[in-house]
Amino acid sequence: MTTIQFTKGHGTGNDFVVFADPEGELDLTAAQVASICDRRFGVGAYGILRAVRSRALPAGAAALAEDPDAEWFMDYRNADGSIAEMCGNGIRVFARFLTEAGLVDLPQGETLAVGTRSGVRDVQRSAGGFRADLGRWRLTGVDPVVRARDLEVARPGLGIDVGNPHVVVALADDAELDGIDLNYVPILEPALPDGANVEFVVVGDPIVDDGVGGIRMRVHERGSGETLSCGTGAVAAALAVRHYAGAGAPDQWRVRVPGGTVGVRMFAAEDGEHVSLSGPAELVFSGALEV
Amino acid sequence: MTTIQFTKGHGTGNDFVVFADPEGELDLTAAQVASICDRRFGVGAYGILRAVRSRALPAGAAALAEDPDAEWFMDYRNADGSIAEMCGNGIRVFARFLTEAGLVDLPQGETLAVGTRSGVRDVQRSAGGFRADLGRWRLTGVDPVVRARDLEVARPGLGIDVGNPHVVVALADDAELDGIDLNYVPILEPALPDGANVEFVVVGDPIVDDGVGGIRMRVHERGSGETLSCGTGAVAAALAVRHYAGAGAPDQWRVRVPGGTVGVRMFAAEDGEHVSLSGPAELVFSGALEV
Repeated sequence: MTTIQFTKGHGTGNDFVVFADPEGELDLTAAQVASICDRRFGVGAYGILRAVRSRALPAGAAALAEDPDAEWFMDYRNADGSIAEMCGNGIRVFARFLTEAGLVDLPQGETLAVGTRSGVRDVQRSAGGFRADLGRWRLTGVDPVVRARDLEVARPGLGIDVGNPHVVVALADDAELDGIDLNYVPILEPALPDGANVEFVVVGDPIVDDGVGGIRMRVHERGSGETLSCGTGAVAAALAVRHYAGAGAPDQWRVRVPGGTVGVRMFAAEDGEHVSLSGPAELVFSGALEV
Repeated sequence: MTTIQFTKGHGTGNDFVVFADPEGELDLTAAQVASICDRRFGVGAYGILRAVRSRALPAGAAALAEDPDAEWFMDYRNADGSIAEMCGNGIRVFARFLTEAGLVDLPQGETLAVGTRSGVRDVQRSAGGFRADLGRWRLTGVDPVVRARDLEVARPGLGIDVGNPHVVVALADDAELDGIDLNYVPILEPALPDGANVEFVVVGDPIVDDGVGGIRMRVHERGSGETLSCGTGAVAAALAVRHYAGAGAPDQWRVRVPGGTVGVRMFAAEDGEHVSLSGPAELVFSGALEV
């Protein structure tokens, strides 16, 4: 038996068990991860974030090759125990944990390079939380029609890849958004081989307020069902609405999800346009668990 | 800010935050309870069990008058912050917590008297867990017809009071039990003024094996929806099936719920027939939380 000293945190309701394992000695099995993430029989979480020094992990070598400053690697596991590349809400909780635990120093305006399985991600402090550069994105060119339970007519979706696949669907108003039953998986026609997270969005009135676009969104995540928030989903939603809005649409968006509000910004980088996600990150309690 | 040192535990998947507050100094507000029990933003639990010395609580005076040995009072709060009288699964987790924390000594065969808002409850160790005497019960005489989503025809229910109101519905087989959608509240006709927990049950094949009756059950709890287990619900289910089975039916039952298996026993006591509930109680992790 090993005792894990952990912290529980969340970003807009996406919640995580976070713990430091600097030397990479605690490689949990899928069964252990699933058991810890079980909300009745375990601690309960959307996923586990293990903080390992990049030099202590095979996957960390690529991160250090990409950026020698990426001292810490975010080893992210889904609640079912599977390995995941990145998590837009999780990386803020990860940054908050590293700074509060005194493992890194991150003054306002400076950048923390975090190793992940989808490459090094730059994180900075933002108003009320953290901002993470999620890198490049693209329209997939595959735009399925979407059906959802209690949505009267099928609607066109827009396929967007933000490191993971999304389909964004615009709805008419808040009543329509509130009315759909996301206990049921939305149906995509044609179906996508790997499925997709599906975001249902309604634009604010006015859409743009003081230079910032406004969106409300609900999301159905592949394998998880409806969640209180999906970081890459909020990013995809903002990209889709900007795309629909056409020329003159802003590069800064505020996205309201059931678990809170996040910010999305598009900006020019050396390798093309990047998109960043900002929002709160809260640490709720600390605990100790035998595994 | 106060720091609460707590333990998280569960009995067949009914999970609780438990903490000791011997002098009754930490009377949480409803908002604090709800915030702690939130599964994304808090610790996450079905309810909170506060262990207070009976002499330190107004509600404890009645417990001590009933039984001077009831040193500890189980101050049980629902996840929404409301006060609850008793919890059949919770009292086992409470007993396990008291014994593991060294607050009481409970050798096999001896009895721990626990103060609750529905009177003093006697708890003993049992094979693999604890057994609690839940006291008297009665048929209510009000037997509504029950409709559930995806149950083809309405079925007769049997009204049973085990300190709280239940309606038990017998189904034909496992397929029918698995097929009902308890995301929707079962409809009772006539409706009951305070509602009821509704148990859907299927009997084992054979019903009685080696003198012990067998039941499988799913439950929809008032205000909570479907849960993995309901202690008083398992008791009501066993009482209903024994009632339906008629003369010669056993006084000992094994009830399988989605979160595990519990035992129910009917026995003669001074004030009439009592019913007891036995089952496992697990402590999962310890934590510290600022409130």
